[in-house]
Amino acid sequence: MSDQHAAVDEVTTIGHERLIFFSDAVFAIAITLLALDIRIPELVGRVSNGQLVDALIGLAPKLFAYALSFAVIGLFWLAHWRRYLLIERANETLVLLNVVLLGFVALIPFPTALLGAHGDLPSALIVYALIVSAAGLMGSATWIYAARHSLVRSGVTPRIVELGMFRALSIPMVMLASLALLPFVGTTITEMSWLLILPLQVLIARRFRARGSDDRGALQGRR
Amino acid sequence: MSDQHAAVDEVTTIGHERLIFFSDAVFAIAITLLALDIRIPELVGRVSNGQLVDALIGLAPKLFAYALSFAVIGLFWLAHWRRYLLIERANETLVLLNVVLLGFVALIPFPTALLGAHGDLPSALIVYALIVSAAGLMGSATWIYAARHSLVRSGVTPRIVELGMFRALSIPMVMLASLALLPFVGTTITEMSWLLILPLQVLIARRFRARGSDDRGALQGRR
Amino acid sequence: MSDQHAAVDEVTTIGHERLIFFSDAVFAIAITLLALDIRIPELVGRVSNGQLVDALIGLAPKLFAYALSFAVIGLFWLAHWRRYLLIERANETLVLLNVVLLGFVALIPFPTALLGAHGDLPSALIVYALIVSAAGLMGSATWIYAARHSLVRSGVTPRIVELGMFRALSIPMVMLASLALLPFVGTTITEMSWLLILPLQVLIARRFRARGSDDRGALQGRR
Amino acid sequence: MSDQHAAVDEVTTIGHERLIFFSDAVFAIAITLLALDIRIPELVGRVSNGQLVDALIGLAPKLFAYALSFAVIGLFWLAHWRRYLLIERANETLVLLNVVLLGFVALIPFPTALLGAHGDLPSALIVYALIVSAAGLMGSATWIYAARHSLVRSGVTPRIVELGMFRALSIPMVMLASLALLPFVGTTITEMSWLLILPLQVLIARRFRARGSDDRGALQGRR
Repeated sequence: MSDQHAAVDEVTTIGHERLIFFSDAVFAIAITLLALDIRIPELVGRVSNGQLVDALIGLAPKLFAYALSFAVIGLFWLAHWRRYLLIERANETLVLLNVVLLGFVALIPFPTALLGAHGDLPSALIVYALIVSAAGLMGSATWIYAARHSLVRSGVTPRIVELGMFRALSIPMVMLASLALLPFVGTTITEMSWLLILPLQVLIARRFRARGSDDRGALQGRR
Repeated sequence: MSDQHAAVDEVTTIGHERLIFFSDAVFAIAITLLALDIRIPELVGRVSNGQLVDALIGLAPKLFAYALSFAVIGLFWLAHWRRYLLIERANETLVLLNVVLLGFVALIPFPTALLGAHGDLPSALIVYALIVSAAGLMGSATWIYAARHSLVRSGVTPRIVELGMFRALSIPMVMLASLALLPFVGTTITEMSWLLILPLQVLIARRFRARGSDDRGALQGRR
Repeated sequence: MSDQHAAVDEVTTIGHERLIFFSDAVFAIAITLLALDIRIPELVGRVSNGQLVDALIGLAPKLFAYALSFAVIGLFWLAHWRRYLLIERANETLVLLNVVLLGFVALIPFPTALLGAHGDLPSALIVYALIVSAAGLMGSATWIYAARHSLVRSGVTPRIVELGMFRALSIPMVMLASLALLPFVGTTITEMSWLLILPLQVLIARRFRARGSDDRGALQGRR
Repeated sequence: MSDQHAAVDEVTTIGHERLIFFSDAVFAIAITLLALDIRIPELVGRVSNGQLVDALIGLAPKLFAYALSFAVIGLFWLAHWRRYLLIERANETLVLLNVVLLGFVALIPFPTALLGAHGDLPSALIVYALIVSAAGLMGSATWIYAARHSLVRSGVTPRIVELGMFRALSIPMVMLASLALLPFVGTTITEMSWLLILPLQVLIARRFRARGSDDRGALQGRR
């Protein structure tokens, strides 16, 4: 009997590990492919150092797009990492929701290249914000699904669920709100406003801690 | 004596884990590389927002091809995940069959790019359907090989083997059947018919559950 | 005291696992990147199905190069998998030798593209054979190093060490020998001769088994 | 009570493993993508063997850049591997520092391509040295952070911390020092001077061992 349960538990563990593993690999590849777009134009003939310096300076928008998307995918990975510290079981629906999330994450190099090449045009910003927000919303959806279907550890309180949700929503909230301002403030200020995601994340985490506990504390406090 | 067995078991476990790990990595890379093909053409001179919107609208076939292939590789990975919950040992033949499977999976970005660029031409659809079907057939072959050579867990009944086989065959069946219709219905309807894979997968899984058990139940029910 | 040993063992285990893990990831990426080179030339204007079929037929040399290199990297991975079933400890020299091996494996997509584009020119074959052979020789070198510095499991006999070495050398042996024939038989026959690697691998494995044991048996047979 | 601690420990372990895993994947992808830049120019018309040999000889700077960056990323990975043998816990700040480190590692293919194409121009060398040094400095920063915040194993002495720091700094030290010489000795000698990193690394490790212990010895010697 206990041997049977051990077998089932092992099955569940392998499945859970592969879900995490596959996700990590997709995050890692997507984040590394971002850099593929940073390349100077093919310079023909004898190239002087001055010409190369000019070409390098011309890369500034691509480097900004790289840093932004690296931070975004990094935060998504960090959120995924945090969530799966607390999710301890996986079922097929969770796996499918996670695959859809990864589908948006793997797409991010595309709007990043778009932003790097045409960051001065509103449609580039809109496409970027929509794809990144879709990834953020899917992250939130997997978390809420897991919490509602008892796939999380026993120490996870409703407040921890709420925090995870707010954190996951912070990126789509900033991105989508910025789109409303886009017609009035222009592309540069809108892009800059996306950097608000970082202080907002810190703020949400602090608020939560201020109320007297953190994920780990909550787990330790369980009965 | 038991120490010897432990050593051999450890050897087997490491081998099994690496097989899964290597496969996960190939699936993850293939699925992430799909997005590399989504890029707008180099727009020269001063680009207006309208021109960029036109270029983005022109990406629709590539986005359809991306979503389709992401779903296909995602389903192949899910099938692989499901199979290796039940396969508990690996031998060199299984590893080789698995490498051939991965060879077709890693190839999928090629017909995806083909479909994205020339989805209105029959030969693009034929190449896509053949390569994806080859991957599906190899998935089915590894499963049947594992079941016949006692590499699966002891609770795996003939019915579970059958289900795994049907699930693995659902993608090649739909794809190859659609090719028979291609001369009569044209490329658009044929591509649309591939979306039938999703309800078919759900149907097969439901049928199996309706008969009173699922993979996990079967494992729990073993003596 | 035993607690101290446990800590050291854990350190060794983590190090060993990461070595394997990092290697698997490099193998997986190199093998998946091979497919990136398979793409039809940008067809301009309205493309007919006949033109696309012609372009696809023109891909045959690239598909041959893909299949060959997929088999080669697959065999290298399989050899790595087999070796690390028997290697149970890692030191920094082994890690460094392994990194050099990976450096040649990661380079394989380059000569593969070369072979796909210029498989009719002797210099393409020479570059391919040299890079692939360098990877094979490094694989053999890591194995011999591990065996000589007691990094392998206790059941590994000199005969198993020898088998591992011959298997690892089979690819460089065939490749380098074929180069001697290249001036006389031309590029096509030379490339075809590389397919002899597969039966040669089977032959070496059979010979070993015929002498009455295999890796696993040898491990079980230890005292 | 002990069950609660076990749960928390498990949480910590999963988090620590994923941090390592995600890092390994990014290192592996960045190191493998380096080879993507090694490709001969599209040769048009009927290509003779002599023309291909010329094109291959023209790749020498790209091959030098590949070997250099492979060694650099390989050493960074080796340093990461060494560090996380001794780091046994992770907190969010360490994860964030690590993500910034990975951001610079993932960027390395860009200056590598720059060096391969324009290794004769000072600005290419400056960009290469700055990005690689930033990665080295971040590696050092994560190590010092971990040591100061008690995330390391109990056997790690101040001297081990110091060694880890010096090793991590050896790459930025050589790179940044070489930039001071660049105006006087030219690009070729500056690039060659970077090869001093390898003997310097060996020297630092020997010095440490000469003082009577190594990482492992230190761990074994703890009370």
